[in-house]
Amino acid sequence: MYRSHNCGELRIENEGQNVTLSGWVQVSRDFGGMTFMDLRDRYGITQLVFNMESNVELCEAARKLGREDVIKVKGRVKERSNKNPNRDTGDIEIEINALTILNESKVPPFTIEDDTDGGEDLRMKYRYLDIRRNSVRDNLIFRSKLAIETRKYLDGQEFIEVETPVLIKSTPEGARDFVVPSRMNPGQFYALPQSPQTFKQILMIAGMDKYFQIVKCFRDEDLRADRQPEFTQIDCEMSFVTRDNILDTFEGLTRHLFQSLKNTTLPSFPRMSYDDALKQYGSDKPDTRFEMRFVELNDLAKGKGFGVFDNAELIVGICASKQSGQYSNKDIKKLTEWIQRPQVGAKGLVYVKFEEDGTIKSSVGKFYDDDALRTWGDKMKAKAGDMLLILSGEAEKTRKQLNELRLEMGRRMGLMDPTEFKPLWVVDFPLLEWDEDANRFHAMHHPFTAPKKEDQERMKTGDHETMKALRADAYDLVINGVEIGGGSIRIHDRALQSRNFDLLGFTKEEAEAQFGFLLGAFEYGAPPHGGIAFGFDRLCAVMNGQNSIRDFIAFPKNNQGRDVMIDSPSPISDEQMGELKLNSTHIPTT
Amino acid sequence: MYRSHNCGELRIENEGQNVTLSGWVQVSRDFGGMTFMDLRDRYGITQLVFNMESNVELCEAARKLGREDVIKVKGRVKERSNKNPNRDTGDIEIEINALTILNESKVPPFTIEDDTDGGEDLRMKYRYLDIRRNSVRDNLIFRSKLAIETRKYLDGQEFIEVETPVLIKSTPEGARDFVVPSRMNPGQFYALPQSPQTFKQILMIAGMDKYFQIVKCFRDEDLRADRQPEFTQIDCEMSFVTRDNILDTFEGLTRHLFQSLKNTTLPSFPRMSYDDALKQYGSDKPDTRFEMRFVELNDLAKGKGFGVFDNAELIVGICASKQSGQYSNKDIKKLTEWIQRPQVGAKGLVYVKFEEDGTIKSSVGKFYDDDALRTWGDKMKAKAGDMLLILSGEAEKTRKQLNELRLEMGRRMGLMDPTEFKPLWVVDFPLLEWDEDANRFHAMHHPFTAPKKEDQERMKTGDHETMKALRADAYDLVINGVEIGGGSIRIHDRALQSRNFDLLGFTKEEAEAQFGFLLGAFEYGAPPHGGIAFGFDRLCAVMNGQNSIRDFIAFPKNNQGRDVMIDSPSPISDEQMGELKLNSTHIPTT
Repeated sequence: MYRSHNCGELRIENEGQNVTLSGWVQVSRDFGGMTFMDLRDRYGITQLVFNMESNVELCEAARKLGREDVIKVKGRVKERSNKNPNRDTGDIEIEINALTILNESKVPPFTIEDDTDGGEDLRMKYRYLDIRRNSVRDNLIFRSKLAIETRKYLDGQEFIEVETPVLIKSTPEGARDFVVPSRMNPGQFYALPQSPQTFKQILMIAGMDKYFQIVKCFRDEDLRADRQPEFTQIDCEMSFVTRDNILDTFEGLTRHLFQSLKNTTLPSFPRMSYDDALKQYGSDKPDTRFEMRFVELNDLAKGKGFGVFDNAELIVGICASKQSGQYSNKDIKKLTEWIQRPQVGAKGLVYVKFEEDGTIKSSVGKFYDDDALRTWGDKMKAKAGDMLLILSGEAEKTRKQLNELRLEMGRRMGLMDPTEFKPLWVVDFPLLEWDEDANRFHAMHHPFTAPKKEDQERMKTGDHETMKALRADAYDLVINGVEIGGGSIRIHDRALQSRNFDLLGFTKEEAEAQFGFLLGAFEYGAPPHGGIAFGFDRLCAVMNGQNSIRDFIAFPKNNQGRDVMIDSPSPISDEQMGELKLNSTHIPTT
Repeated sequence: MYRSHNCGELRIENEGQNVTLSGWVQVSRDFGGMTFMDLRDRYGITQLVFNMESNVELCEAARKLGREDVIKVKGRVKERSNKNPNRDTGDIEIEINALTILNESKVPPFTIEDDTDGGEDLRMKYRYLDIRRNSVRDNLIFRSKLAIETRKYLDGQEFIEVETPVLIKSTPEGARDFVVPSRMNPGQFYALPQSPQTFKQILMIAGMDKYFQIVKCFRDEDLRADRQPEFTQIDCEMSFVTRDNILDTFEGLTRHLFQSLKNTTLPSFPRMSYDDALKQYGSDKPDTRFEMRFVELNDLAKGKGFGVFDNAELIVGICASKQSGQYSNKDIKKLTEWIQRPQVGAKGLVYVKFEEDGTIKSSVGKFYDDDALRTWGDKMKAKAGDMLLILSGEAEKTRKQLNELRLEMGRRMGLMDPTEFKPLWVVDFPLLEWDEDANRFHAMHHPFTAPKKEDQERMKTGDHETMKALRADAYDLVINGVEIGGGSIRIHDRALQSRNFDLLGFTKEEAEAQFGFLLGAFEYGAPPHGGIAFGFDRLCAVMNGQNSIRDFIAFPKNNQGRDVMIDSPSPISDEQMGELKLNSTHIPTT
């Protein structure tokens, strides 16, 4: 027997008991006749005491132990004279009478502490040591609990978890697929799913009614900090539902998760159209923890002789509350440089300061008198002490730039409280996106998304501008400016789906070869249906007020798609290549 | 709104309510002035009534509907005059006053009934219609519930579910890997995991203490009826445990699953050594629903002038209770032919019948008198009316043949009750298996399995016969003759692991290239640990007394590894091949 208790459970009530513990040596301190040692496992830390007077040999053996050695000890629980109120086991210590070394440890390449001295690369290579740190361990435990609560809620709502296949079929639409050569079918490949989209629709046609799955998905894309080649989704689909049925169900799930894991009751889940989100925030995933909504000034600012505004498609600004006194001319210059960086790309910045003393200062005071500027301030609900920040230019670009500026101001003004959570449904996305380069439409969500009911007739006409204006019955759940989930009502009619494939530039043959099974299935009694998928990794991060999903993945890959711990990917043997009937055309650079 | 209720929930208490239902037309029957229709969804069937007198138009529309059309109806719940006690909703019907056709269905290629007229191939191609059948739908719901109960139990035992990566590294040991070419690392490949074995061990070294995962695994093997290229495991690992800790924990899980899903309290989980299993049943996964254990007769049957026995390494038989009267000479001849088939391959069969009247009949009566045969009968505990069936020859082969015969007799004698469940732990497997062809050892379980403590010293010697006799701390859970799960205590010491790799014929370089990360991890405080994996698909099948795992997989592949519904695998584009820097060397046959 390795232990009678774990390192986190002994209390003062256990005083006098003989116990056996196993774990890792966290740290030890020698005080003349005594050696104190912290023994650690997943559940906590317990203090051990080795007494030189009662057992010299034992105490000397203990003094030879180093950090991260694995030991088993036997001893008696006693009350500590020097209690540690910060630790659950802080009232007791174990007077040790037997010690077994289970395994020794070399000196770790970084310290196993909350505040470690190990850099990212080193921690990833020795991920098994990194996971021993409290923060990483707690993140993985959080993730496990989040999955449990997700399943509990959906099971309670009569959702059935169905495993869909991982070895499926490559479809060029969407992101790039990872493919898997088939040995039994030489020259042919499986693909790894980017999502179980078509399978969950098939399950609706199969009458499963409510489906979910917490499932790995795969995209062979160039990686950014918050992207991984394999990621996890909470994937759901429902039959005989309207959009509002789905939004209500998944508001319920989200509320349950925040309540059970963060003890947080979420505020209301307002719904905002995609168009309004862009107009008011310049983004389809606005951070609504703070206001600072966009106000358009075209009607007030044009035609007064300021050429930059006169020639602009859009003049739009935000009102930064109580900032007029915070920004000197030098600060404004720095802020202007910030938005002129290539990452943001604005041409310039116009400010209007409504000083506390009633005076008005502005970079465009030459062109607009105080009365004119006051009309701007009124429209933007500026009070004394506030500062307007205004951009102008081509509408779409200007909104994107002002979105960046708004978020930056929110950060600077401390308006992004990581413990506050503000959900928002963004609805009514465009159905199609025009791709100038490819001279074709792309599906904004995916090719199975239904147009809104009132747009279905219009979809049948061929007119380009009408197509651009079509609205999809699609929705995203945004929390604190992060897209947590997205979904749509799906097409369930073969003719409408074919029309959509036409619009997306599929030939009949391509549509049939890639999605013939789904088109066929629509002919055998497909029910109206829709669904949603939550990014599980991102949900973990957002719920903990963190940015990087990597911190919530046990074994993440780096930006080159490599697992540096196991050193993968790696070459395979010629025999394996031969069995797969494959040759590499790659010429290694030397 | 598509429905106020589903098709399985209305009862007599709902009488008089106005309801909206949606679903599929199962069947309809016209009776003069009335049309009765069964409306189906996942939850059940509700009878609809259309009345020609009250609404001709509606009734005529209903009469045009065909099987599997999807409709929405509104109406009032009323008591049925002709109740159907076999159906939860059998006390009521809905008098319809509005009908909307949501989607039409072509005539399905097979009937959506329990007893369908569709063959396997057709049902797989139209799997979405097949899943509408009660039996398939119930299997998938069973699977979902089994996963929920598994997680509930393991969560209650403080196991943490950790997702391990799907894109890992190819290791030639074990079965063949599926590989995934890396675009970002040309010429290199990921592999799909055959199991998360090394990752779960890494998680133990990381201090996670108790890990589990319900996880997809992959093997590129030639397929049999009960094998799939992708399959699901309940994968578990624990730290600071002995074998008995693990067996107790997973006896607990198994008991919980049978209790909660089958309302069955399992009998005891006896433990039997691998050697005893082979001696007593000729198999390491005996079906213990019935006895008929092997009894060896070498001491009694040799040296009496019967050459076949005299020259045999082993003479071994079973006693078939009350079968002497059931087998005529012709029947015995047929049974002999059965065991002489190439699939079994026995040379011959010796029988001894102890007739009800006290006489003894035997195919070897020439060589053994009644007294001699009676000593056999005594040893095999035969009673009047019993029949001994005896095989002889080389020991290992003879045991395998007698195992087949025992199972066949169990089937014929009706001893394999599909509603009875008999668990058994088989323990103390050999560590290594000698492969004559390859002239090397294989790991019987896998290369990370620890030898039993008492064999660890012996493992350090190089002697071939000693190596063959080494016992592993490995165990299988067998229920009704099917291996449900298997696992072992793992090696956690670098030197012992290296020694094992040596024995398995790895060079130092190969061991380092493939498993260097694990060997390295052993040096940083690896705790003693062990684990187990349950075949989830097979567990589903066994719990339902079925043989094929395919019936419990939503979208299984056929014996050529193809998904015939989506038609995968399939060729990929030249552009994709180019991006992956791959050429196919396959020459298609025309």
